[in-house]
Amino acid sequence: MHTIFFENKPRIIATGTIAGPKECAGVVGKYVDKTLSDDTFGETTYEKAECKMLAYAVRKTIENANLSEKDIDLLISGDLLNQIISASFTARDFDFPFLGVYGACSTLAESMAVAAAFVNAGYHKRIIAATGSHFSSAERQYRYPLELGNTRPPQSQWTVTGAGGVLVGDGGSDVAITCATLGKVVDFGITDVNNMGAAMAPAACDTILNHLRDTGRSVDYYDLIITGDLGALGSRIVKDLTWEKGVDMQKNHVDCGEIVYDVIEREFQGGSGAGCSAVVFGSYIMDGLKKRKLNRVLLCATGALLSTVSSGQGESIPCITHAVAIENI
Amino acid sequence: MHTIFFENKPRIIATGTIAGPKECAGVVGKYVDKTLSDDTFGETTYEKAECKMLAYAVRKTIENANLSEKDIDLLISGDLLNQIISASFTARDFDFPFLGVYGACSTLAESMAVAAAFVNAGYHKRIIAATGSHFSSAERQYRYPLELGNTRPPQSQWTVTGAGGVLVGDGGSDVAITCATLGKVVDFGITDVNNMGAAMAPAACDTILNHLRDTGRSVDYYDLIITGDLGALGSRIVKDLTWEKGVDMQKNHVDCGEIVYDVIEREFQGGSGAGCSAVVFGSYIMDGLKKRKLNRVLLCATGALLSTVSSGQGESIPCITHAVAIENI
Repeated sequence: MHTIFFENKPRIIATGTIAGPKECAGVVGKYVDKTLSDDTFGETTYEKAECKMLAYAVRKTIENANLSEKDIDLLISGDLLNQIISASFTARDFDFPFLGVYGACSTLAESMAVAAAFVNAGYHKRIIAATGSHFSSAERQYRYPLELGNTRPPQSQWTVTGAGGVLVGDGGSDVAITCATLGKVVDFGITDVNNMGAAMAPAACDTILNHLRDTGRSVDYYDLIITGDLGALGSRIVKDLTWEKGVDMQKNHVDCGEIVYDVIEREFQGGSGAGCSAVVFGSYIMDGLKKRKLNRVLLCATGALLSTVSSGQGESIPCITHAVAIENI
Repeated sequence: MHTIFFENKPRIIATGTIAGPKECAGVVGKYVDKTLSDDTFGETTYEKAECKMLAYAVRKTIENANLSEKDIDLLISGDLLNQIISASFTARDFDFPFLGVYGACSTLAESMAVAAAFVNAGYHKRIIAATGSHFSSAERQYRYPLELGNTRPPQSQWTVTGAGGVLVGDGGSDVAITCATLGKVVDFGITDVNNMGAAMAPAACDTILNHLRDTGRSVDYYDLIITGDLGALGSRIVKDLTWEKGVDMQKNHVDCGEIVYDVIEREFQGGSGAGCSAVVFGSYIMDGLKKRKLNRVLLCATGALLSTVSSGQGESIPCITHAVAIENI
């Protein structure tokens, strides 16, 4: 059993999102709280800009809930940067405790799952789960110096510049987190660090199948099954993999990475990064849930758990997917 | 309130530890499950050796509990390497789900706190919290290439080569985790990356004071208040800081970093690293608890949440301390 059930139905009270100009040209543009006109956000480095975005998302989430900082019991956050500095430095700005998590691009679902588990158990009343990423800080950490102007292969994805916070609490909304399926690490032996979608798709398939088995639900139970950032290629693969196991997600699957950019051109397979699902879920999807255009969604955030050192030492890419079921009640 | 109380008293069923030759020359030598004769552990890189130690600790923890892998519901783990690759690659070896956490050297207490919270709430029966570190992989990631033979300043600490696992379950032992105090990020503006003890001491002080306030306990309640790895200098500072607030820890404070090495010489202030508290707690302290030489301990693992990038960009060092109360019942 990989699924935890939340009988007290912790709610999503509010979200707060921010994204870069390129991201806001797409589907999320209408829904995010703040669109950056310049991806440095007035800072001198991309890392500081990423951290400032995350802090903005946390603060905006509190504001959107009409609460103040003292109403928050805990921040659960992580990001893509080494030693999750964006999350740690964001936490420094606030007076509530902090749990640092790391799940690469699965961080949003991981932190939401832990937040819901803690609220459901009555340990806390209100917890913020938050994450973010920045194209330029991720690019120079994971790949090449930006100044190199390196060409990108067609299977690559574009790290989303953006951040999102989700306030999980014990009431105050009709949108509930009803259960969470924690992922296990799956490694299909992919070594191409530009082909994250293919690497992560088997982990997404594993968690989705575990979720359906544990809950006894069919795929039609959900209005949408949302994967984190498999991109266009990874989305095709996960639909093929689940189809082989008798699960047809053709009609109700959507991938945050695939839909986040309006024109998939220089981004090739679409978006990626911890901020991808945070921005898409926190703005576009939450809007649908609040307006009851969507009533049951399964958010499956996918993460590739590699580092430049592990790749450099010839390792393949272990991946993970955590899923949270979000339902209007 | 920063403290979560565990009414169902989740137990520590077993621990499993491994450490390098330098570490095993000290106090933990008699108690660890395996002493490495060579810190490469038969691997071609230090990172792979670190990962192999962590996997050993997890496997040994299960074995020490007379259980098998299928009895374990979840692994909660993190480490010091970029993108916590030791934890993620360890998780790949096992069939149970994985939650990645990051709290630098506070990781053991953070993962134990989450494990106890999940077991206490009835979500899982048995969870392994585990972490580790390796001197050579940490040194070359955070500081300088080992080949440089760089001199070390007197305020520096020596990253422990070792790993430890703690199996938290719903019964099967008299050693219980009764509550956990989650830390908030504290930054006193220290920028010297060699002076972690001084940077982390204020965070340790903050969490210890919060714990005593939340629980209504006095410092004498505990046989030992164990800080993670402040080292000799940091230990003096935390005792001064708490003393200023009317809390006298002189008689029952011990620091894992200060006691881990037999002769503090090349290590200057003592040990550090996520593996430091994992090895000291999992072997020496747990032996005392099992033999009832110790009955009430407060494990306060301390973490410095910096990265080479944050330091390079002129940032000070944000720190955190998570505490778990462990009691014979």
